[in-house]
Amino acid sequence: MEFMTGVSNRETIEIGALSEALGDGGSVVDGKSVKVNGIVHAVRDMGDVSFVILRKREGLLQCVLEEGKTDLKLKELKAETAVEAEGVLKTEKRAPNGFEIRLEKIRILSAPEAPLPLSISGRKLNTSLEAKLDNRSVSLRNIRERAKFKIQEGIVRGFRDFLYRQGFTEIHTPKIGARGAEGGANLFRMDYFHKPAVLAQSPQFYKQMMVGVFERVFETAPVFRAEKHNTRRHLNEYTSLDFEMGFIDGFFDIMEMETGFLQETISLLEREYAAELRILDVTLPKTERIPVIRFDEAKRKVSEKYGRPIRNPHDLEPEEEALIGRYAKEEFDADFIFITHYPSAKRPFYAMDDPADASVTLSFDLLFGGMEITTGGQRIHDYQMLRKKIEKRGMTTEGMEPYLDTFKYGMPPHGGLGIGLERLTMKLLGEENVRETTLFPRDLSRLEP
Amino acid sequence: MEFMTGVSNRETIEIGALSEALGDGGSVVDGKSVKVNGIVHAVRDMGDVSFVILRKREGLLQCVLEEGKTDLKLKELKAETAVEAEGVLKTEKRAPNGFEIRLEKIRILSAPEAPLPLSISGRKLNTSLEAKLDNRSVSLRNIRERAKFKIQEGIVRGFRDFLYRQGFTEIHTPKIGARGAEGGANLFRMDYFHKPAVLAQSPQFYKQMMVGVFERVFETAPVFRAEKHNTRRHLNEYTSLDFEMGFIDGFFDIMEMETGFLQETISLLEREYAAELRILDVTLPKTERIPVIRFDEAKRKVSEKYGRPIRNPHDLEPEEEALIGRYAKEEFDADFIFITHYPSAKRPFYAMDDPADASVTLSFDLLFGGMEITTGGQRIHDYQMLRKKIEKRGMTTEGMEPYLDTFKYGMPPHGGLGIGLERLTMKLLGEENVRETTLFPRDLSRLEP
Repeated sequence: MEFMTGVSNRETIEIGALSEALGDGGSVVDGKSVKVNGIVHAVRDMGDVSFVILRKREGLLQCVLEEGKTDLKLKELKAETAVEAEGVLKTEKRAPNGFEIRLEKIRILSAPEAPLPLSISGRKLNTSLEAKLDNRSVSLRNIRERAKFKIQEGIVRGFRDFLYRQGFTEIHTPKIGARGAEGGANLFRMDYFHKPAVLAQSPQFYKQMMVGVFERVFETAPVFRAEKHNTRRHLNEYTSLDFEMGFIDGFFDIMEMETGFLQETISLLEREYAAELRILDVTLPKTERIPVIRFDEAKRKVSEKYGRPIRNPHDLEPEEEALIGRYAKEEFDADFIFITHYPSAKRPFYAMDDPADASVTLSFDLLFGGMEITTGGQRIHDYQMLRKKIEKRGMTTEGMEPYLDTFKYGMPPHGGLGIGLERLTMKLLGEENVRETTLFPRDLSRLEP
Repeated sequence: MEFMTGVSNRETIEIGALSEALGDGGSVVDGKSVKVNGIVHAVRDMGDVSFVILRKREGLLQCVLEEGKTDLKLKELKAETAVEAEGVLKTEKRAPNGFEIRLEKIRILSAPEAPLPLSISGRKLNTSLEAKLDNRSVSLRNIRERAKFKIQEGIVRGFRDFLYRQGFTEIHTPKIGARGAEGGANLFRMDYFHKPAVLAQSPQFYKQMMVGVFERVFETAPVFRAEKHNTRRHLNEYTSLDFEMGFIDGFFDIMEMETGFLQETISLLEREYAAELRILDVTLPKTERIPVIRFDEAKRKVSEKYGRPIRNPHDLEPEEEALIGRYAKEEFDADFIFITHYPSAKRPFYAMDDPADASVTLSFDLLFGGMEITTGGQRIHDYQMLRKKIEKRGMTTEGMEPYLDTFKYGMPPHGGLGIGLERLTMKLLGEENVRETTLFPRDLSRLEP
């Protein structure tokens, strides 16, 4: 009988381990024999010697092939061939990691069938967004393209790690349901065993229900919005970073928590994603102090300062958001700004109205570089207040009983927020289109790959 | 201008911090004044004094209310009332955490509208599964019920933390697509802006596409299966823990990685989820060495040993799985067992056939306590081999071009697996129905809450 006992050591060695082995200056292990694997990312034929650049999960690895040193013909080493190689370590200041491998043996593990439809070995892909998305599994092999999604991983890690430490519990709530949390026209509808069903626009109802259980909960999961417009900042499916917390003194607690998340994430990225930040040439935003401004005041300020007339007093147009972002930068050298007290008319029924002025809510948006990346706020926790608000809006409570019962049987004061992961990544990396920071975007015209 | 600068210290204090403050014996802080919040979980009126048990996110907290000490009438403190309380710390060996709070002040933050439809303050809920699920936001407030989902959190954390350290990158792939990875009848269908679409049965195609990018990837996300049967181990929506890794020497690498994940998760649970394990009275399974047996041999062994005739040579019936689990326990004192070399006919087209015998695949299932919790294996990485297998099965390649192109442009040998989170949780906790370990289950008859 054979037994599995855990992960065994591999003969092949990774870049991180190689770098460590080299230590200070590397003189101690110069000449050491090593075995590595990787994908041929680029080959540069210099005549007597050739550089074979391997793409590995941690980065690029420079190998040197001297003519006649191995049996392999250079022309067999086409780009995207998977190989296992043996050779000798040599410090080399000009190589990507400060060392290279002088090849002695190469074995082909698998070879491509056709040459790439677009060149990926340059620093930056010189192609249209459409071509990138059409050839997604290839374009992502570009070092810069894939680095974006490593950063995206860091953001989600930062979110989870921070919230775990703050006493939050991770939850998994259903994406198929009988009705949407926000209602309205942007619901994807489907048939669920001959019953009408919808895809979740947000985990709103469920995370509120779970506040009564765990007090503080979060979820990182897909949400679905059947928005019928193609813009550079909307997706029809995206990853939502959601949290909800009980026993708040006010909605400022939610904004504080988000500020803490941003601070910790930036610090995690600096610490563990430095290589990707370098590849992407990103300057991380400032998160030490994030200004807070009321909705009406923000509107007035940018109207005065930038001479833009207020056309719609109940909502912010994208241009106004951009100007508020500019105001934050100019006045406070701030990359982020919280906008509070959004008009009640523009917020969902569960938003808590301000007791001092019922026309506005105890809610906020967070703008990053002049674009909304978060909506959050305090929710109604009182059963009667909730029922009255639903009635006032002319909504039906049909199908909402499981949600409403949560409040009937007692709920602490609470609130929370939702952050669009792809949009936050987009703004962090200074991209102009949210599809640039989405692995496989879904929009009005794109259902594949 | 106001600024957010991060999470500020709260006046109220949590159980963990209280326990720490008490230190060894607690004599040093006996008599210290503290402020706490929580939900009234139970009230026990003993005459002159009453015990008010607060439910907090970390557990239960015993408070003592002496008559006349506060303004509050005991009858105002109904179960599920959210309160803020002040009092004096007192060591008390018989209290849940070794201490209690002698109340001096209680403030009601929010009160329930109606008494609970089921009693939740006992150790165990005495109610049917149906009643539990119908009143989900209430039943989960039971300490034992919610502990299950804390353990589930630990499993997902263990999965991610282990894979991060093993060089995996987390990905987020779309759940709406043009076609399913496995095909077949169990696809949920929907309309996507007048185009036919399906919900993802698994992230299979996408995670394979990402192996060419990051070499090692994982995802923890919902998957959707329109299975038309209600069983105690199937859900129509569940959380799948998926990984896929390149440069494998064989499918044993995948089984090693899974063993490593299980070992680390068990250790994480022991370390950080001890309170919940105690509440649930769970003995964690053994993961030091997991036996490996071939499919045909397993079938033969249990037929011989337990006198069960082999009826279907191509698949394992649930009763056979249970017997194999019994065999593993009796022969090797093992809670888990890997079954390898499943018949090709029962595996998807992308499974790698055994070069020594094309009727079986280089694949495996992992059984836990006699039930399948994982399917995995090596995948075909050669473009021509993949096309031939698709052709041989009489499948169409229409709509599969983005997937097939991945192989055309080169892919390393690779493999991976998928683990059903709710089912793994169920087996770990010794539950008999997967709905017991699903927050809001979706099945043939349940679309709400």
